[in-house]
This record gives sequence, C-alpha cells and structure tokens, in this order.
Amino acid sequence: MRNLRLKLSFDGAAYHGWQIQSNAVTVQGTVEEAVEKIFGSHLTVYGCSRTDSGVHANEYFCNFKTEKSAIPAENAVKALNGILPPDIAVLQCDEEDPEFHSRYDCKSKEYIYKIWNSSIKNPFFANRAYQYKYTLDEVNLNEAAKSYIGTYDWSAFCASGSSVKSTVRTVINAEVLRQGDFVIFKFEADGFLYNMVRIMAGTLIYVNEGKIDKSSIKDIILSGDRDNAGFTAPPEGLYLNRVEY
Amino acid sequence: MRNLRLKLSFDGAAYHGWQIQSNAVTVQGTVEEAVEKIFGSHLTVYGCSRTDSGVHANEYFCNFKTEKSAIPAENAVKALNGILPPDIAVLQCDEEDPEFHSRYDCKSKEYIYKIWNSSIKNPFFANRAYQYKYTLDEVNLNEAAKSYIGTYDWSAFCASGSSVKSTVRTVINAEVLRQGDFVIFKFEADGFLYNMVRIMAGTLIYVNEGKIDKSSIKDIILSGDRDNAGFTAPPEGLYLNRVEY
Repeated sequence: MRNLRLKLSFDGAAYHGWQIQSNAVTVQGTVEEAVEKIFGSHLTVYGCSRTDSGVHANEYFCNFKTEKSAIPAENAVKALNGILPPDIAVLQCDEEDPEFHSRYDCKSKEYIYKIWNSSIKNPFFANRAYQYKYTLDEVNLNEAAKSYIGTYDWSAFCASGSSVKSTVRTVINAEVLRQGDFVIFKFEADGFLYNMVRIMAGTLIYVNEGKIDKSSIKDIILSGDRDNAGFTAPPEGLYLNRVEY
Repeated sequence: MRNLRLKLSFDGAAYHGWQIQSNAVTVQGTVEEAVEKIFGSHLTVYGCSRTDSGVHANEYFCNFKTEKSAIPAENAVKALNGILPPDIAVLQCDEEDPEFHSRYDCKSKEYIYKIWNSSIKNPFFANRAYQYKYTLDEVNLNEAAKSYIGTYDWSAFCASGSSVKSTVRTVINAEVLRQGDFVIFKFEADGFLYNMVRIMAGTLIYVNEGKIDKSSIKDIILSGDRDNAGFTAPPEGLYLNRVEY
C-alpha cells in the first residue's frame, strides 16, 4: 500500500472550500477527480485543513492511499497538473509512511491575511485580498499582534457552532508587515479553531480603528467571550501559507 | 454636452476583449451597461484601444458624451465602481473638451508583457501572466529589445488580415527586466499594429531559444515578412500599462 502526499497551491476564489460537498465545487472534489483519472480508481484524498469558501493556499498538503498504481511520485506531479484546472497546482508528490495523515501529523500551520490597504479598487486582487480603505498602522498592529503569542483557551476567537474537544491552542508567532499598498498579518500556531485567523485579523482591524485597545487583547482572550473580539474578516484575504510536519 | 473620460483598470481574463460583441461578454459592453444605469440612457463608450480576449489593463481610457446627466465627475467613480464587477475598476473620471476622443487623441501607449518564468505551476497567475519554463536571460533580451526602437514599417510584426492605412509606427522605448520569477517586457510606441506587442514578445522568446539571432532583429523588421518574426505570444501576459495624451 502506497501513501502519497501532495503539496498543493490553489486560488480558492472559485471553490466552496476544501471539503467535498454534493452540490458545490470544492478543492477536495476537484483533486479527487484528477487523482481518479491518473491513478485509475476513486481514492479519498485527506486534506491538512478544512478551508472556508474563497480561502486560498500558498502551501497545502493532502494524502491518499493506492494499492494499484505504480506511477512514480515525480511523474504524478506533471500528470495531475495536466488534468487539474489552472487555479489548482500540484507542487510536489512524495511517498510517505503508511501511517502518515496530512491533518493529524501536522505540527504547525502558518496563515497569512492579505489586505489591499487602499481606497482604490484593485481589479487584480478582487478575490485575492481584502480591501481596507483606511490606513493601517503596521508598526502599532505588529506590537498588538505580539499579545496573541502564547498558549490559551481561544474560545473568544472561535465561531459559534464549532465542536472541538479542546479550544486550547499555542500561537507561536504573530506579526504584521507592510509590502507597498499591501499589509500582511502572519500567524503561526500548532492549530487554529474555526474562523480563528479571520477573527484575529478582524480584532487587529478593530485595534486600528480604536474600537479595541491593544493593551486589552490578552483580557479578550482570557474572557473566553466571542463578543469581546473583533469582527470575522472576510475569506478572500486568507491564505494557508506554510504547514510543518 | 459633457464629454467624460474614464481611467479604468481591468483584469481581462473573463472578457472577450474591449470591443462590444453580440454574443460575448466584453469590457466595453460591461462599462456601457454601468454607464447606462448611472447616467440614465444608453451612451456609446469609446475606448483607447481594441484589446484582445484575455488581455488586461493597468491603465485604460475611454470616454462618452452625455447631455442629460449633471452627476459630478468625482461622484461617478464611486457610483460606477458600485455597479461594475470586481474585475473592472474606474480609477478616475474627468471632464474633457467636447472634441476629445480616447483613441484618436492618444499620443503614445505603453504595453507590458508579463512572464511567469518558472517550471512551477502558479495558480494565482494562471490567466494573468504567460508561463515560460526555461530561464530567460533578461540582460541579453534587454539588449535585443533595443533593436525595436525607431520608426519602421512594422508589417513583419502584424497579424495578417489587419487593414490599417499605414503600418509605420515609432517605437519609443523597449526594455526587459526581471522581478524575481517574473520577467517583464516593456514597449512604448506612438501606436501598435494588431498583435504587434505579442509578436515582439514572441520574437524575444525566440531570441532566448537561439531560433533568432538578436543581431538580425532589424533585418526582420525591414523584411516586412511576418514569417521571419517569432510566434504570437499568448494574450494572458499582455497588459496595457500606460496611455499618454
């Protein structure tokens, strides 16, 4: 039994997230169709993360098991890219141990939240960045972001309706940087709760607007109350950026 | 009679070029619909250039005349952007003299041809750059591009079937530069023939491949024979970049 891991990159604008759905086009569904064509049978492709509708990935890992096919891993990259649409790319394919699982074996993930910080409409980033018209103070927000670093119960930064065993996560890094008219929020953690990155992003935007004081971020986390944190920033700015195993 | 000039920017991936067609979605058709909603009647919008299907614009000008509407030019920007799809942006709106015409009054145009110069599939630039897998030598190509500068009959760089009065154009600037994994060809002229920029780009790619010697570019221009120039590079790399009046 071979266990193949794919490293993907995708523009999520046209997809209803990763996870397969019966009546919507998803990244998982699209990748499973391509895998079926190349590997000869329908195989479940396990993803490293359930991404929301419209969310992108600079790096995303998934894996699937096959008994039948002897296609070398390096040939699979070209074959899959030839079938997949232009907005999903296979960057690498590796043979893994039989026990490897893209999601459960992941040690940490880094997300970026990309903001087109300008009042000017940008037709090239319409679905690839969140437009925010008022000037973001990246130095101040970078200081504010440092309050996210640490091990906490992140219930205040989790969408309601989520059912996870533990809401404790360790944020390893949090930073804010400017690249011209773009501002990038970068968050790394051992795992993220549902909508956690988008609420972390929305809270920093509230800090910029003076609606939340940066000195109170720790208290908001400790309160465990979703109402105290900022808004859920929209999906188009969110990119899974790096996954560590 | 007011004559309003719009400065646009658009991602052309979803459009069959600028010029209105009965059975295809075009930039002109989409802009005319938005103008009709804001200005209250159907008005012909005159563009500065007929762009091909899939071609983009960082800067594009068009104009239209209205007798009825008193909407201030500065308000039109916001109103039109609210109606236009995310991939077409109005950046500016100015009152012009009654005789002004976006196309006939244009003094020069600058196009860029954007190449994703990597063997790795890039899902974020699938329709926004031309992927070329083999390393482009931007220093050598920049030297080669200088041969384009001057006033010539550009028949060798014009798609057949084009019917223009004169095939003489003056290329003011031609350069090649690298930005990380992107290579940019930049061409400025008082005007371009049909497919001229894409043939200029394809000819530089042939120079990189050793199919055309850079010392023979002048001879190819002077030959007037389309067969001597390189291939017509695909539309997804082409951007109208700047228009001077």
